[in-house]
Amino acid sequence: MEILDKYNEVRKYSEHICKPLKTEDYVLQPVVDVSPPKWHIGHSTWFFETFVLKPNMNDYEEFDPNYNFVFNSYYETVGARVIRTDRGNLSRPAVDDIFEYRKHVDKAMNQYLKNGITEEVKELVTLGLNHEQQHQELLWTDIKYILGNNPLFPPYDEKGKPGMEKSTLSNDFVQIEAGLYEIGFAGEGFCFDNELGRHKVYLNDAQVAKSQVTNGEFIEFINANGYKNFTYWHAEAWDWVNTNKIEAPMYWHKMENGWHYYTYQGLKPVDPNAPVCHVSFYEAAAFAAWKGMRLPTEFEWEVAAPDLDWGNRWEWTESAYLPYPGFSKAPGAIGEYNGKFMVNQKVLRGASEVTSPGHSRLTYRNFFHPHLRWQFTGIRLAK
Amino acid sequence: MEILDKYNEVRKYSEHICKPLKTEDYVLQPVVDVSPPKWHIGHSTWFFETFVLKPNMNDYEEFDPNYNFVFNSYYETVGARVIRTDRGNLSRPAVDDIFEYRKHVDKAMNQYLKNGITEEVKELVTLGLNHEQQHQELLWTDIKYILGNNPLFPPYDEKGKPGMEKSTLSNDFVQIEAGLYEIGFAGEGFCFDNELGRHKVYLNDAQVAKSQVTNGEFIEFINANGYKNFTYWHAEAWDWVNTNKIEAPMYWHKMENGWHYYTYQGLKPVDPNAPVCHVSFYEAAAFAAWKGMRLPTEFEWEVAAPDLDWGNRWEWTESAYLPYPGFSKAPGAIGEYNGKFMVNQKVLRGASEVTSPGHSRLTYRNFFHPHLRWQFTGIRLAK
Amino acid sequence: MEILDKYNEVRKYSEHICKPLKTEDYVLQPVVDVSPPKWHIGHSTWFFETFVLKPNMNDYEEFDPNYNFVFNSYYETVGARVIRTDRGNLSRPAVDDIFEYRKHVDKAMNQYLKNGITEEVKELVTLGLNHEQQHQELLWTDIKYILGNNPLFPPYDEKGKPGMEKSTLSNDFVQIEAGLYEIGFAGEGFCFDNELGRHKVYLNDAQVAKSQVTNGEFIEFINANGYKNFTYWHAEAWDWVNTNKIEAPMYWHKMENGWHYYTYQGLKPVDPNAPVCHVSFYEAAAFAAWKGMRLPTEFEWEVAAPDLDWGNRWEWTESAYLPYPGFSKAPGAIGEYNGKFMVNQKVLRGASEVTSPGHSRLTYRNFFHPHLRWQFTGIRLAK
Amino acid sequence: MEILDKYNEVRKYSEHICKPLKTEDYVLQPVVDVSPPKWHIGHSTWFFETFVLKPNMNDYEEFDPNYNFVFNSYYETVGARVIRTDRGNLSRPAVDDIFEYRKHVDKAMNQYLKNGITEEVKELVTLGLNHEQQHQELLWTDIKYILGNNPLFPPYDEKGKPGMEKSTLSNDFVQIEAGLYEIGFAGEGFCFDNELGRHKVYLNDAQVAKSQVTNGEFIEFINANGYKNFTYWHAEAWDWVNTNKIEAPMYWHKMENGWHYYTYQGLKPVDPNAPVCHVSFYEAAAFAAWKGMRLPTEFEWEVAAPDLDWGNRWEWTESAYLPYPGFSKAPGAIGEYNGKFMVNQKVLRGASEVTSPGHSRLTYRNFFHPHLRWQFTGIRLAK
Repeated sequence: MEILDKYNEVRKYSEHICKPLKTEDYVLQPVVDVSPPKWHIGHSTWFFETFVLKPNMNDYEEFDPNYNFVFNSYYETVGARVIRTDRGNLSRPAVDDIFEYRKHVDKAMNQYLKNGITEEVKELVTLGLNHEQQHQELLWTDIKYILGNNPLFPPYDEKGKPGMEKSTLSNDFVQIEAGLYEIGFAGEGFCFDNELGRHKVYLNDAQVAKSQVTNGEFIEFINANGYKNFTYWHAEAWDWVNTNKIEAPMYWHKMENGWHYYTYQGLKPVDPNAPVCHVSFYEAAAFAAWKGMRLPTEFEWEVAAPDLDWGNRWEWTESAYLPYPGFSKAPGAIGEYNGKFMVNQKVLRGASEVTSPGHSRLTYRNFFHPHLRWQFTGIRLAK
Repeated sequence: MEILDKYNEVRKYSEHICKPLKTEDYVLQPVVDVSPPKWHIGHSTWFFETFVLKPNMNDYEEFDPNYNFVFNSYYETVGARVIRTDRGNLSRPAVDDIFEYRKHVDKAMNQYLKNGITEEVKELVTLGLNHEQQHQELLWTDIKYILGNNPLFPPYDEKGKPGMEKSTLSNDFVQIEAGLYEIGFAGEGFCFDNELGRHKVYLNDAQVAKSQVTNGEFIEFINANGYKNFTYWHAEAWDWVNTNKIEAPMYWHKMENGWHYYTYQGLKPVDPNAPVCHVSFYEAAAFAAWKGMRLPTEFEWEVAAPDLDWGNRWEWTESAYLPYPGFSKAPGAIGEYNGKFMVNQKVLRGASEVTSPGHSRLTYRNFFHPHLRWQFTGIRLAK
Repeated sequence: MEILDKYNEVRKYSEHICKPLKTEDYVLQPVVDVSPPKWHIGHSTWFFETFVLKPNMNDYEEFDPNYNFVFNSYYETVGARVIRTDRGNLSRPAVDDIFEYRKHVDKAMNQYLKNGITEEVKELVTLGLNHEQQHQELLWTDIKYILGNNPLFPPYDEKGKPGMEKSTLSNDFVQIEAGLYEIGFAGEGFCFDNELGRHKVYLNDAQVAKSQVTNGEFIEFINANGYKNFTYWHAEAWDWVNTNKIEAPMYWHKMENGWHYYTYQGLKPVDPNAPVCHVSFYEAAAFAAWKGMRLPTEFEWEVAAPDLDWGNRWEWTESAYLPYPGFSKAPGAIGEYNGKFMVNQKVLRGASEVTSPGHSRLTYRNFFHPHLRWQFTGIRLAK
Repeated sequence: MEILDKYNEVRKYSEHICKPLKTEDYVLQPVVDVSPPKWHIGHSTWFFETFVLKPNMNDYEEFDPNYNFVFNSYYETVGARVIRTDRGNLSRPAVDDIFEYRKHVDKAMNQYLKNGITEEVKELVTLGLNHEQQHQELLWTDIKYILGNNPLFPPYDEKGKPGMEKSTLSNDFVQIEAGLYEIGFAGEGFCFDNELGRHKVYLNDAQVAKSQVTNGEFIEFINANGYKNFTYWHAEAWDWVNTNKIEAPMYWHKMENGWHYYTYQGLKPVDPNAPVCHVSFYEAAAFAAWKGMRLPTEFEWEVAAPDLDWGNRWEWTESAYLPYPGFSKAPGAIGEYNGKFMVNQKVLRGASEVTSPGHSRLTYRNFFHPHLRWQFTGIRLAK
């Protein structure tokens, strides 16, 4: 596809996600990990204005110099200012203003991209679109958090996101033969810097489950008092369970007629055949320990991936998020992208039902802190 | 005035205050003491639905049973529920829905009040209107906080609240002769329960300043390093100054061309002749110590009040907020109104530029924790 | 008594209190309000070295200049230093070193006092001895905390503090007639600055209980679910109860064979006839509300005191700790003594079983924050 | 060596470490990671009583059943009790009592071991001795923390720990050839469970510095504003630096005549030729980034180790602390030993000047959270 068409397609999808929202839904930041939807809309726009238009388009007129401050997430490069912006405390710029900003930048980008661009700028635009796709997934998850923690349990949309929860129910395991494997991105097209540095990894014999763990299996863990037995849990996980009184995956509510969970269509009975979702690494590892198994490493995952059923849930791996051999940070603000997070996080592999179309790869390395649950995170077993 | 006319007048004023707001401004709770404007709008409506209409009007139809939960501030009487409501985390009910709720209740109240009511219900309606007037002042102060802590410093209204900042500049003191005085409400009409129990208090000779302390005088305190010298401060005040790095009243910003402060019309140069505002009790007491004076007690204030210039700022007194002799809590939820706050708060007397018309009295006892500054609080000296 | 004799008597009593301690007991600071016993021993000595010997005795040789830093509680007058001292984190100076310091200062004080001193210095020494007596009560309470929160419940001394818990069990009330009363210190001899400024206070008719509330009466409150019913509690008290899961006075443990509490002789069954102890202001006020009564004000207490049975427990009053009319801080470090605490604390009147001999007065004003319980604090009712 | 001789040798070394301590030094827990020395002395004894004597020696008499509770670090297997033990809040058992406990257990162990034991018990004793050696290193580091954070900077011993700070100053790098290597313990004798599961790892070409980074080199980093430039730091490291105002390694103080640090002999000038010590992983990684290099992985370290100069400092590696392939937890309390910590920690390799004699191995995997600095942790570079 032409870069211009790709640009317009990706940008429109962000707006499509927001369509059912009320103005009020755009503003809140209920917990630190969740950003207000209007911030995502502004920040993804700011990326193109700051890195593409301002340095490259001759007669580009900045929309509003204050926006650079409000929508910048690279705080370290910004100097001191009178008032610290907390994303969740800003009623202005208003939602309409931000969509004006978006229109202004899209119009300029369309003019600019029409006239042909260098390969270097094209790479920057591609990075910006992948960046926006990451924020699209965050839009989905942050909207779910904002609505799903409201005591009225308002649906995002009565029709929800149709056709997403299909899943397989195989009990098979995919066999990995011991030996040397190549890991990391090697193909054509876009990838993030953290996938680069394709390198050899030696794997032992291993077996990786063909399907993800289901809600029904996870309810067995709950019923077997899995949340009450410290032997299944890491020491810090056990603290987390007890401090936060965790008794089930996020969004689950025990009601008189059984477990329910919040979905984009409102509160629904838990489907025992759907893959379990919104669990932390701690819960994933405890479930595996209860089963007498373990989680796969990200290398086992990548090797087995072509034979696995995946796509509905990000899958926690045992692997810590670390640089591949030969990883080096790009210079400047773009270089802050991935490397600075390479400590105390866990790698997730695969993709989820809210990953943007075309934004998944066998070599994709997603990462989150082990206690987080608001992403569409599930469990795949290995042994 | 007829109770019905009074009802409609007070209720309309709340809506008048909100008129310049954008939808986004209604939703935020930037700090725990500030409530989202939409919550004030709903909560003051809930009062009439819960205490007047539901128990008294025969065919009243409840607007939405969920609203009882969302807009109830008397949390202790409400049972356990699945999810705890944090006022600042709720995008729904939406602003339009809440104004629908308001219309629904106002329509019912108009029907109900038209047909004549008992004296008892009339008292309840009067309490509800005074309650709403308290929330009107909170609407003003909470809106100021939400806009004034936004780095764009958006004005509430370009025209602001005209005619509010007039003040006198007298250096005179009002003399109080030693002797017995009667303190507390004794007249006709409405007062809160905390003003009742008129009782004798013996006062020593004292002098109370005729005018409030001005911004110009307070800048002298700043320039004399008043914020850096522990001898002027209470021990816990000194912790507060250092922990929060306090260097000026709230909303003040030191810019190249001098002190500015956020006002309803945006950022403006500080007016040295206006009474100082948005100071904590700690700052008020430290300023007085620096001057070699003290703050008046609430009894001295009430005795001197007829001869004082007041009306723009609530004035911190030395008095702790305690029950008058003979105070007793009303039974039931209404009884939670005032008594339960009678520990660790300071009495403020007078009224401010954002106090609702008709809502001030010589005997009115306002109260806040000593560190709070987002109300229109100023300083009057005594010796 | 001669000042020299008085000096030696008071100083010896501090050492007497410490006699049964092991070295390990001197070192700990289990919570911020409790100081390590060795700190009390050093700090009370530092007072005499700093305010009496160094400025007045010609050839006095300072024991160790570092001790000024370690035992100074008036932090504000001390400049920046490399490392912040937390009293509870210092294993050195060792206990033996501190008793050496004590001997060194006592020897110098004996020499100095023998030779006759000015009236001004005599007042300073008297203040120092009253200051030490305050720390003697803190020694008792801090030792109780350190031992009473050890799971081995070690006794302070098998014989305990004999003869302390006698109490009366009268149900009578002392009548106060409405009228003007004089409040504050007026006699000869020592008093603290916060008792000065004798002044008139008008009191309404009131009744004050002759005896303190007993453990047996308090157990009735517990059994009546007093800790579970919010209507008896101030709003912030209710938070305190729930956050800290308070279910009984401090040191109480519910065992199979009934309530026990930690005493200086170890864990013992609760004596139903002894006055209740180690309750916060919040609990005192809630108990009174449950009884349909209230706590006395400090003025009512002072007027009724000659007819009351008191002496085993400090008694929470309704009064906030505020300056009397005409109170003014003394200049310099001594002036930091009382005034800087006059916000957010409650007055306690009377004395307790661990108050030093000769350290109680009808006009004595003790004060603590309303949530604290490690002092010997009890309840007297009024109505 | 016979197991009995080994037992007595290791046990005596713990007592040797404590010899210069005063009783007061045994009691404190200044921060959560540091345990009171008396706890180490009791806990290492408790291990032998609980896992060797009580289950195996017929006529063993338990010293005191309360000690099981006080010295147990495996909290999860212990039921609810009246009072929670905070190690740092316990003045009792007293130091003398704990040494009595130690003697009691040592006497029983000597009797028991004399009579010949099964291979299984011998393994348990060996584990207990290695466990005690780990606590010996903690004794050294915790004592240093307790004394080094005292404003008097008391020396542990005027003679210190002689002969410890020798180090090499080579600028050479050891070359690793790309290829498959075997990693993990394979020899005879004791190792911890986390070293087992010897397995193949593929390494790329790499170079590992022969010597550790020196204080002199680290001062260059400080002087080059390394602590002020966010580009060298992980995102969470940058928060850590700013929140804690970190400006130098732990124990360093900038004085008029240059950098000093606390040593076992007291405060001394920093030796520019000694290997830098008491740095966090964050600082190690930032230093490496400033140098344009990186830290080695634990696999590179193990392969290069025979050619490296090591022994004075534990060395942070890039590797997260994760299970080797085939790792599985031992059943029961012993099984809690290592596996439960395998998340969010970093591997350190080598040994330090306070590692017990005979307690280091090429395959040894030490681990700590990345922000911790009170261990003897240093930096080795790789590229």
